[in-house]
Amino acid sequence: MHPQRFYTLSASCPDRVGIIARVSGFIAEHQGWILESSYHADDGNGADGGRYFMRIEVKADSLPFHLAEFRERFRPIAEELQMNWKISDSAVKKRVVLMVSRQEHCLYDLLARWQSKELDIEIPCVISNHDTFKGFVEWHGIPFHVVPVSPDNRAAAYAEIQRLYDEVKGETMVLARYMQILSPELCEKYPNQILNIHHSFLPSFVGAKPYHQAYQRGVKLIGATCHYVTSELDQGPIIEQDVIRIDHSDSVEDMVRYGKDIEKAVLARGLRYHLEDRVLVHGNKTVVFR
Amino acid sequence: MHPQRFYTLSASCPDRVGIIARVSGFIAEHQGWILESSYHADDGNGADGGRYFMRIEVKADSLPFHLAEFRERFRPIAEELQMNWKISDSAVKKRVVLMVSRQEHCLYDLLARWQSKELDIEIPCVISNHDTFKGFVEWHGIPFHVVPVSPDNRAAAYAEIQRLYDEVKGETMVLARYMQILSPELCEKYPNQILNIHHSFLPSFVGAKPYHQAYQRGVKLIGATCHYVTSELDQGPIIEQDVIRIDHSDSVEDMVRYGKDIEKAVLARGLRYHLEDRVLVHGNKTVVFR
Amino acid sequence: MHPQRFYTLSASCPDRVGIIARVSGFIAEHQGWILESSYHADDGNGADGGRYFMRIEVKADSLPFHLAEFRERFRPIAEELQMNWKISDSAVKKRVVLMVSRQEHCLYDLLARWQSKELDIEIPCVISNHDTFKGFVEWHGIPFHVVPVSPDNRAAAYAEIQRLYDEVKGETMVLARYMQILSPELCEKYPNQILNIHHSFLPSFVGAKPYHQAYQRGVKLIGATCHYVTSELDQGPIIEQDVIRIDHSDSVEDMVRYGKDIEKAVLARGLRYHLEDRVLVHGNKTVVFR
Amino acid sequence: MHPQRFYTLSASCPDRVGIIARVSGFIAEHQGWILESSYHADDGNGADGGRYFMRIEVKADSLPFHLAEFRERFRPIAEELQMNWKISDSAVKKRVVLMVSRQEHCLYDLLARWQSKELDIEIPCVISNHDTFKGFVEWHGIPFHVVPVSPDNRAAAYAEIQRLYDEVKGETMVLARYMQILSPELCEKYPNQILNIHHSFLPSFVGAKPYHQAYQRGVKLIGATCHYVTSELDQGPIIEQDVIRIDHSDSVEDMVRYGKDIEKAVLARGLRYHLEDRVLVHGNKTVVFR
Repeated sequence: MHPQRFYTLSASCPDRVGIIARVSGFIAEHQGWILESSYHADDGNGADGGRYFMRIEVKADSLPFHLAEFRERFRPIAEELQMNWKISDSAVKKRVVLMVSRQEHCLYDLLARWQSKELDIEIPCVISNHDTFKGFVEWHGIPFHVVPVSPDNRAAAYAEIQRLYDEVKGETMVLARYMQILSPELCEKYPNQILNIHHSFLPSFVGAKPYHQAYQRGVKLIGATCHYVTSELDQGPIIEQDVIRIDHSDSVEDMVRYGKDIEKAVLARGLRYHLEDRVLVHGNKTVVFR
Repeated sequence: MHPQRFYTLSASCPDRVGIIARVSGFIAEHQGWILESSYHADDGNGADGGRYFMRIEVKADSLPFHLAEFRERFRPIAEELQMNWKISDSAVKKRVVLMVSRQEHCLYDLLARWQSKELDIEIPCVISNHDTFKGFVEWHGIPFHVVPVSPDNRAAAYAEIQRLYDEVKGETMVLARYMQILSPELCEKYPNQILNIHHSFLPSFVGAKPYHQAYQRGVKLIGATCHYVTSELDQGPIIEQDVIRIDHSDSVEDMVRYGKDIEKAVLARGLRYHLEDRVLVHGNKTVVFR
Repeated sequence: MHPQRFYTLSASCPDRVGIIARVSGFIAEHQGWILESSYHADDGNGADGGRYFMRIEVKADSLPFHLAEFRERFRPIAEELQMNWKISDSAVKKRVVLMVSRQEHCLYDLLARWQSKELDIEIPCVISNHDTFKGFVEWHGIPFHVVPVSPDNRAAAYAEIQRLYDEVKGETMVLARYMQILSPELCEKYPNQILNIHHSFLPSFVGAKPYHQAYQRGVKLIGATCHYVTSELDQGPIIEQDVIRIDHSDSVEDMVRYGKDIEKAVLARGLRYHLEDRVLVHGNKTVVFR
Repeated sequence: MHPQRFYTLSASCPDRVGIIARVSGFIAEHQGWILESSYHADDGNGADGGRYFMRIEVKADSLPFHLAEFRERFRPIAEELQMNWKISDSAVKKRVVLMVSRQEHCLYDLLARWQSKELDIEIPCVISNHDTFKGFVEWHGIPFHVVPVSPDNRAAAYAEIQRLYDEVKGETMVLARYMQILSPELCEKYPNQILNIHHSFLPSFVGAKPYHQAYQRGVKLIGATCHYVTSELDQGPIIEQDVIRIDHSDSVEDMVRYGKDIEKAVLARGLRYHLEDRVLVHGNKTVVFR
């Protein structure tokens, strides 16, 4: 990431001749200074019809116009190329709502990064099904909402979460070891904006108690996976993963402890890629322009 | 591993007070010099009845007797402790039969280690369902047997493999990317002595074409697993695993290429652990005294 | 680590025949149940005179006596074997003083682990040369002392740090990205109890601005090192290290950000090894019974 | 890498507005289909004057002309942009000379990759200061030259190596654990085309016996570095590095054995990046478009 203000264009479109020339030509024509750019052609591995992905950072003050005009002028090109696209402004902080339960590691980790501006975001509120971290979060000056979830009140609870998220104009929801399964409706309403950290190296050990599953199978490495939440449990597009070595002497409790370090690092990396528009979803997979 | 000649005792038994004292006391009584020793108590993670594992290297010339007498004298202790145990002599090379198909990487890798004596073993023969590497293996002075396998001759082929293995008094069989599934009978006849290298991070992507499966799922790391072969495909006790990072730009072919490096390293480490009696099987898991 | 109360004996002595038998025999004689035990013989790699290291966890309630009597009864054996040794009780929390400056990541990380009892320690106080984290630390109910350090007051400042540390009966001091160099006197007064996290993979990039040095050299991985502080800067015995991959697109700022994740993980692991008496110092190296 | 024939343009030039537009515009104008493209702006981290790097793969049969005409037509653009540039053809195999001594691992590894066409190169000859691998190399149908090096004949030996390399029109020289230091003249005559694998994680442990140095310092990870050879020992631009975890129980011999696995993997990756024109040298650093 660059210290100057910049606009980030991220886009995908059907592959053809001349895409980079068309887009970079437009930017050059207006004296736009490209700070960073990444391109990827996915040929579908044999399936017909490739798809093209790109991400371009342009220095804001190199252009003779602002973001709104950029969008206006770029639109015809995007239409011609049949693009899915968006442009964001590095000066506008994204609004990220954190969801937590009773485990501390991801919450402390994300607040540390927010406090030091490593994560340069707004956290309009934290939502939890427990009040464990109310004092801690509020000490940071961030509103904390307890929305208990029980078998009886599930629908009402999810409605309340949705209301709170919409109320603060949330743009990204982070399940920071939030131990409830969101309703399919919620997942589908906010596609590619809810991030989860699953405490296994997916697709191994889907569902509950993955460390117990890993212990039973006797694996020699354990991992964590940051993915977009879809209505199918632990099946969404994977953004980031990592692993750590264990051995026969490690109990489930040891694995939980080692795992926490991987979970918070993987969640933080995945979230940063997402916030910097480095993640482009392609079917159930991701292009991550690290 | 130590340059001097040594005996390796590896054993497991029900856990109780005084096991180490009993075993190390016996060794000390005969002035045995312990070069390396490892112990592990598995409490069954809550299940009743823990099990104890150990591996001890004793300098051969520190003892006043040879291996046969060591065995004789140790037997009563082993019986008292209800041990599964064995003792091996570092001066006696193990007889390892390699099984290959048409992929070169594990074969070249193992022969390089054998040639330099990093792997200090006998390779009485290499068996393959193809003649691809006949010249290469024979150049190294190792007999090469082609045993074709087809849907029609499966039973006869496995009988021939078994005959060849028994004929050379094989002690370990290594499936070095051997692309046939052994018969359940063969797997059960040689428990914990057939090692396979599976080209995924198990339990993900069992069975055929794991790199294609990994590509489809969009994982961010790929791996390999060295495990003992049992009659259930890719379900045997895991000895060693490792992974390597990939990204969206890697095709299935790239993953195959990266994967080969992990496969050969994991197989070589797993095989060494096995040959040095560092692997003790416990149900469907392993204790690996690295 | 085990949920039951246990005593941890850690010791080193000149290598000879019968050490394990002597120590484990003593424990067995009193019906001591060994939960975990590790041994290592260092032959000095050719130098004359090997040294033996061990660490044994014994279940407290399996013994017929308490720690004081254990010590008393074990002393003659320790003397006979010329041991450096200590025994600690898992029920007695260690007193750990944290030293910080203005970077948040290690502090948040350690307090998160302390808050959840993953790190089961007393933190009698946090000392800093800045007041940045005063509110945050005090919110956790931990006293916070500001001891400014300037070229003029160095001696007085270190005297004050020593006074505070002694006053709270500190047993371990953790430099959690404390950006001052302790005086040689302080380092020598508390040998093997001051831990530092250095933000490079030592011995590369000793001293100031290691990420700038790494950027200049164009390395492809950056790392962090947890080590005991000695009077020679960044030269003390290494306890734990790790690395993370970077590439040409990463600026110094990116490296700092990636590095923070490695720093806090390495410091936390190193500190846990230290607190569980898993680290035995041997000259300028460590034996770490992970 | 792509199965179709393609041309690879790699280039660097002073950074300015419109570089991508100029280059991709040229390609699009001739209906060139871009398979893969990578760009990097190095702002010099504060120093004045950034530099721009790029690598573009264009499908050969999408263009209406062959390589010679591509070069001719592209030249004016390259001059306008003050580029260092080259274009290569995936159908033309590069000529790579291997230099070895008495260690087998890198040689077996590279020949395995060459045999399976994973490395799609010509190996016109192997040169060694020993005859250890003469039979092995010749069995592969590759000429093997023994050029002994001794304190007395150093100049003559290097002259002979240069003669052999020039005679076979070598384009890349790989020091695959070649245990002699090349003369400064040789290093300077072939800049950025001689690759070495150093058996440490540089800049730690420069020079002789790095595993002994690592053992003495007590590091917890060991590594290997693939770099371009310059006249300063182990100081050339780093192409690729990796590490593996060790612990106190590993002797120097164990480290050598673990290290060999890292060495061959790092050398193979670095060599592939080099051969696919993915490595652009910038001062004493590299841009590697993986």
